[in-house]
Amino acid sequence: MERNAMKEHLKKMLGADQVLTEDLDLLYYSYDSSFLTKLQMSAPDTVVLPRSTEEVQKIMQFAYENRIPLTPRGAGTGETGGSAPMSGGIVMDLSSWDDIVEVDAANMQVTVRPGVIHSELNDHLAGFNLFFPPDPGSSKMCTIGGMVANNASGLRAVKYGCTEQYILGLEVVLPDGRVITTGGMKSKAIKNVSGLNITKLFVGSEGILGVITQVRLRLFPKPKGRGIVMAVFSELDDAPRAVLEVYRAGILPSGIEILDSSAIKAVNEFKPHINLPDAEAILLFEVDGNPPSVEWEGTTIVEIVSKFAQTVEWATEPDRMAALWEGRSVTAAAATRVRADGSRIFAGEDISVPLSGVADALRKIRALGKKHGIQVVNYGHIGDGNVHTAPIIDPENPEEVERALKLVDDIHLLAIELNGSTTGEHGVGAVRREYARLEHGDAVDMMQAVKNALDPHKIMNPGKVF
Amino acid sequence: MERNAMKEHLKKMLGADQVLTEDLDLLYYSYDSSFLTKLQMSAPDTVVLPRSTEEVQKIMQFAYENRIPLTPRGAGTGETGGSAPMSGGIVMDLSSWDDIVEVDAANMQVTVRPGVIHSELNDHLAGFNLFFPPDPGSSKMCTIGGMVANNASGLRAVKYGCTEQYILGLEVVLPDGRVITTGGMKSKAIKNVSGLNITKLFVGSEGILGVITQVRLRLFPKPKGRGIVMAVFSELDDAPRAVLEVYRAGILPSGIEILDSSAIKAVNEFKPHINLPDAEAILLFEVDGNPPSVEWEGTTIVEIVSKFAQTVEWATEPDRMAALWEGRSVTAAAATRVRADGSRIFAGEDISVPLSGVADALRKIRALGKKHGIQVVNYGHIGDGNVHTAPIIDPENPEEVERALKLVDDIHLLAIELNGSTTGEHGVGAVRREYARLEHGDAVDMMQAVKNALDPHKIMNPGKVF
Repeated sequence: MERNAMKEHLKKMLGADQVLTEDLDLLYYSYDSSFLTKLQMSAPDTVVLPRSTEEVQKIMQFAYENRIPLTPRGAGTGETGGSAPMSGGIVMDLSSWDDIVEVDAANMQVTVRPGVIHSELNDHLAGFNLFFPPDPGSSKMCTIGGMVANNASGLRAVKYGCTEQYILGLEVVLPDGRVITTGGMKSKAIKNVSGLNITKLFVGSEGILGVITQVRLRLFPKPKGRGIVMAVFSELDDAPRAVLEVYRAGILPSGIEILDSSAIKAVNEFKPHINLPDAEAILLFEVDGNPPSVEWEGTTIVEIVSKFAQTVEWATEPDRMAALWEGRSVTAAAATRVRADGSRIFAGEDISVPLSGVADALRKIRALGKKHGIQVVNYGHIGDGNVHTAPIIDPENPEEVERALKLVDDIHLLAIELNGSTTGEHGVGAVRREYARLEHGDAVDMMQAVKNALDPHKIMNPGKVF
Repeated sequence: MERNAMKEHLKKMLGADQVLTEDLDLLYYSYDSSFLTKLQMSAPDTVVLPRSTEEVQKIMQFAYENRIPLTPRGAGTGETGGSAPMSGGIVMDLSSWDDIVEVDAANMQVTVRPGVIHSELNDHLAGFNLFFPPDPGSSKMCTIGGMVANNASGLRAVKYGCTEQYILGLEVVLPDGRVITTGGMKSKAIKNVSGLNITKLFVGSEGILGVITQVRLRLFPKPKGRGIVMAVFSELDDAPRAVLEVYRAGILPSGIEILDSSAIKAVNEFKPHINLPDAEAILLFEVDGNPPSVEWEGTTIVEIVSKFAQTVEWATEPDRMAALWEGRSVTAAAATRVRADGSRIFAGEDISVPLSGVADALRKIRALGKKHGIQVVNYGHIGDGNVHTAPIIDPENPEEVERALKLVDDIHLLAIELNGSTTGEHGVGAVRREYARLEHGDAVDMMQAVKNALDPHKIMNPGKVF
C-alpha cells in the first residue's frame, strides 16, 4: 500500500491525534535501548496510539488485509531491538493505554491495559496490601504489556519467578484481527487447566504472535519485612559457593546480586562516597517475609557466608539497607561512565548460565574483553545465573565498534557453551535471533510452525526471535 | 492398517516383551479413574512400552505414516479419560520408563524420564535437601510425565503454584517422529527467555501435541519447618472470609484445605475415631518455612481465624499434625463409603471458582445434589478456589446414573457461571471438552490452529481437550 494512503486511512480510522507521521516522531520510534538500533535505526512509516480493543482490532485488520508489517511497542525500554520496526510499516504504541481496569483484592488479582507502568501498578496495589512480585530494573518506565511480551523478571526472580507465573489470562488481538481471551473468557479463577496453555505461549512471544490488549495478573500478599546481607569476597569462586550453601540451608532469598571487581571499580569511580571495598566480588542477598523469618534468614545467611567472605554485614533498617544496596543500584549508571571518551552499549548484556558456571562465565567474559581490547563491567542476578555485561566503547570509532561486536558474539557463544542461554530475561528481539538454531536446534521449526499457524502473512514484528 | 499386521510390526520393532496384545491387557488400558471410562470403556488395539527416545520415535513415525491414533499414558490415575484410547489404536505406556537421569544439586534441578513416580522422586531428592513442590493427592502412584501432561498441582499450589512453573525444559517426540528439546538443547539455565515458550505449551497439553520423553525440573530447597492450623466454623461463609484475612495479613500458607458439612459427616461415618466436630466447615492451614516463620505464621493465623471460628487448634508436633490432617487425608476414601449400596464417581470433581465464590459454590452444589436426588461430598483446595465434589450413586442403576450425569453437567455450568473453570487441576480429557467453547470462546480456534500445525493428521490422543 502506498505510504500516504496508509497514513490517511489510519487518520480517518482513529482521528489525527492518535496517528503520528512527522519525521521527528518517527525517529523516536526507530530505536530502543539496544546498541543495534543505535547503529542501524529503522523508522516506521507511521505510529498509531490505540486506546481500545476495537481500535487495535481495526488497525490489525487493516494491516492484515494490506500486508503491512506491524510492531507493538510499550515504553521502548527493551535492549534487543524488539520494538523497533525492522521492516518499517506501523508501530503500535500501547504506552498511553494505561488503565488499571479492576483491582479484585478478594480474589488477589488485577486486570490492566498494556500501558500501565510497573512501579505505578505496585504503588497502587500497596493500598490493598498486595503486590506483583517481578521487579525489572526499569520498574519506573517499563509497561506491564512489555513485561508480558518479554516475560520480564529482574531482581526477585530467585524466589518469585518471572512474569509468566503471574499471568492468569490475556486479551489478545490476533494478526487477522480476531480478539480472543485466554485463561477463560470471564474467568477469575486462580487455578485453571482447561484447554491448551496459550496464555503462556503469548508470554515472552515478543510481539510476533499478536497484540496483548489486556492482562489479568495474579497478586501476592505484600511481605511485611525485608533485610539485606552484603558480603565481600577476595576470591571470585567463593561467591557462587556461598550462594549454593545458602540454598542448601533451605533459604530462598528474594534476590541475590553480584558485582564483580569490574563493577566495584566502576561504582567507586562514579560515586566515590559509596566506597565499596576493593574485592573480587560483592554479593547482596535480599530476604523478605514475616519479621521473624527475615531475622532468621538474615542471621543464618551471615553465619553461612562468613565461612567464605572477608566481611559480611546485615541490616534491616531502611537507611542502612539503602546504603548497602546503593552500589548495586548505581552499577548500570556507573558502567556508562568508566571512560570519559566512551559509553556503555547494550549488547551481549543478558546471558544466563547455570549457577555452577557463574564464576567461570565472569572470568571468561573478562578474558574475552581483554582479547578484543574492550573494557567490560559485569554484574547481575547470580541467584539465577543471569549475568549482565556492559561493554564500554567509543561508539563513534568504527574499528572499536567492530571489535565490540566480535566480543558480543563471543559472549553469546560462551553462554551456549556453558550450558546457558544468550538471554536470561531481556529477550531475543533482533539482536540474538542468529543464535536460535544453535540454542534450540529443531525446536525452532516447531516455533516457526506455531508462528505460521497464527500469522500466515508474517506481518507481526518481522525480523525478531528466530 | 490391518490390526494384526500392526501388532506384528510393533513386535518386530520393539521385541515381544514391550508390546501387549492380549485382551486382558488391553482391558486394563481401556479406562482410568473417570466415571466416563467406567460407563464406556475403549480398548486400544495394542499397547507399547517404550524405554528410550529412539523407541518412542520409531513408534510415532509408524503411527504417523499409517494414521494410527496414539494415546500416551502414565500411571492412569487421571479422572478425565485423558489416557483412555477413545478411537482405539496404540496406547503408549510410559510408566516403566522411570529413570532419574541426573540430580544436579549445584544447579537445583533434576532430569527424569516420564515414568518416575512423584513420591519416589521427592524421596530421592530429600537426600539432597531439595524438593519438587507440587503435591497431587496421587503422589504415590502418579508419574512426572502425567503431572506435566496435566499441569498437576494439588495441596501446595497456594504458595508453590502448579507443575508448570517448575518445568525448565522437555524432550518431546512430535507426532511426525521428530525429536525436539525445549528450553535449550543443552541448557541447564534456570532463567531463559530465548525463543517462543513452547515448553509451557506442552505442559497441560494432555497428550494431544506430542509425547514427553524427558523432563528437566527446577527444584526448591526443602523447608525446615511445618505446622498445621485447624479451624472449625459454624457458618460456611466465615471460612473463605477467614482465608482472605490470612492473605491480607501477608501470609501465603503452603496449603489451605476445606471440608464442608458433607465431608465432615462422611469422615466421621468412615472413621468414627477421628471424631471431627459437627460443623458447617473445617479449614486446615498448612504453613512451611524456617522454624521462626512457621511459628509466627501459625500463631498469626490462629489469632485471625479465632475471630470467625468456633474452635481453632495449632500444632507443629508431627503426631498432632498428622491427627489434625487425618480427616482431610481420608476424605476421598470416606466419600466412597457414605452409602452401603453406592460408590463415589469421579465426575464434576474438579471445578475451580474465584475465592470469593467458594461458599456460594459449595451451597449451590449441595442444592444441585438435592435437585437431582444425588448425595454429594465436597472438599478441596479452598486457598485457590478448587472444589472437589464427590457424587455418590449406585452405578448399576441406570436411572440414577442419568440423574448423576445431569448433576455433573449442572456443576460444570455452575463453575462457568461463577467466573470459574470446569477444571482447576485434573484437566479436560474426554469428559469436559464439550465446555471448551463456553469457557474459552474463540480462543478454542487458536488452540485448534496450534494443534493442527503440529498434528495435521490428528493422530495424537483424539477426542480430548476440545
